[in-house]
Amino acid sequence: MLPNITAKWRIRKYNSSGAASLQEDDIATEYPLTIRLDGEDFATIVCSPTDLEEMTVGFLASEGIIRQAAEIESLRIDEERGFVYVELFNKQSTSKDDVSKRFIGSCCGKSRQFYFHNDARTARTSMSRMVLTPSQCIALMRLLQSSSGEFKLTGGVHNAALCTADELLAVRTDIGRHNALDKLFGYALRQRLAVTDKIIAFSGRLSSEVVLKAAKIGVGILLSKSAPTDLALKLAEDLGITCAGFIRGSEMNVYTHGHRIVDDGVEEHKSEER
Amino acid sequence: MLPNITAKWRIRKYNSSGAASLQEDDIATEYPLTIRLDGEDFATIVCSPTDLEEMTVGFLASEGIIRQAAEIESLRIDEERGFVYVELFNKQSTSKDDVSKRFIGSCCGKSRQFYFHNDARTARTSMSRMVLTPSQCIALMRLLQSSSGEFKLTGGVHNAALCTADELLAVRTDIGRHNALDKLFGYALRQRLAVTDKIIAFSGRLSSEVVLKAAKIGVGILLSKSAPTDLALKLAEDLGITCAGFIRGSEMNVYTHGHRIVDDGVEEHKSEER
Repeated sequence: MLPNITAKWRIRKYNSSGAASLQEDDIATEYPLTIRLDGEDFATIVCSPTDLEEMTVGFLASEGIIRQAAEIESLRIDEERGFVYVELFNKQSTSKDDVSKRFIGSCCGKSRQFYFHNDARTARTSMSRMVLTPSQCIALMRLLQSSSGEFKLTGGVHNAALCTADELLAVRTDIGRHNALDKLFGYALRQRLAVTDKIIAFSGRLSSEVVLKAAKIGVGILLSKSAPTDLALKLAEDLGITCAGFIRGSEMNVYTHGHRIVDDGVEEHKSEER
Repeated sequence: MLPNITAKWRIRKYNSSGAASLQEDDIATEYPLTIRLDGEDFATIVCSPTDLEEMTVGFLASEGIIRQAAEIESLRIDEERGFVYVELFNKQSTSKDDVSKRFIGSCCGKSRQFYFHNDARTARTSMSRMVLTPSQCIALMRLLQSSSGEFKLTGGVHNAALCTADELLAVRTDIGRHNALDKLFGYALRQRLAVTDKIIAFSGRLSSEVVLKAAKIGVGILLSKSAPTDLALKLAEDLGITCAGFIRGSEMNVYTHGHRIVDDGVEEHKSEER
């Protein structure tokens, strides 16, 4: 049986007047899952213990090992020991050297891979003709934030949603930003969803790796509550992805490919303030 | 010449009334730095382009390659091409297989290494006798937050400080949480600082990997603005590290080894509220 996504901890809590009390608190769990691919250790992912099949499918697609869920012959999870056994119809030809090429990314110091290598094979330039109004962007981010019980409980998880212009189709949660996106990727692949007319709404920062993941999933619009990095924006420009960030309350910044964010009637003013 | 830690981007900004304006915004940069160790590619780190020598030293120590800065014979940075060339007095004996063992951690999906392997060699159990009052913890976090111009500018970087009970000795900033800690680690090693009586104040979440990094650096108290994970807390319990989180305003949660947080006179109340 999988552990819960949160665990109870007994903590000492200081309130604003400096008084301490012992309380029970909800803490996000970390669950290590090792992927055994065609009989060999492929990777160990520390994640929130939910949607592990989707995460595995999304991870393998993100690494360029598969392109469709149908390439997987079998997938079996040993919940107790934290293993997932994956067999492909066509045994993988990717050399170990390719996959294990070390590259350390920005979000916490290490990415899964370098976008000059594996990523070049899997990240697609978006041709999406999807457009959204600012109000729709803001409404989607509100829906995302109201959907996450775990974040409210623990403050320690990320949420990602695959959306239409007005609805969240699927929300996935994880302590790891990438895992949340891989879970969405796996969901989309298993459902054979058309993604070019979909949007990703995300609670975390937009690093280069998040933009690459969105490109691999295949969406054209990426919405975030948080800040982008400049490499993320450069990649988004290259890959044709619309990035909007700092979506908080009813404010929003549009960084790249702004043609997909279409004003709903409010006039645009050029400002020379800064 | 290194790029700046932030870059200007022209963005479209929607204010709360829905009006849009074109503005210039400051965005955190990502700089890829490849470490060549004794003539071979060792790792590529995407980081904020500051304190690269410290980061390299801290990273190598964190990976268990060196224990002291004095083990490095030479270290030279090619800022244009993004390379750092490191030669050790004793050429490294670590087998490539050891180092490249894939492990994917929680913070963004991949950690530098698995704590059962490399980490077991380098993470130390803290014997620190340092104690702090809650007011000191809160004051250190305030100092950390007021120290970061880049965060205020971009909202996209993490800060870590090595502290005494009352002062920040060094503050390091990075888009990557681990990099900020590696920069501190390198600073401490190059200064030959005694660390057992020091504290780390950190803006990011306390994942298992952050706790391991604190243990490697050798501090006994880890303060954070953000949430912990349960694996982080289990490791902190094992490694003798005091973790306090959600330090915001004058509130704070103490999770592990609370004996190092000593009340300044306010009575402790047991609460059965939750």
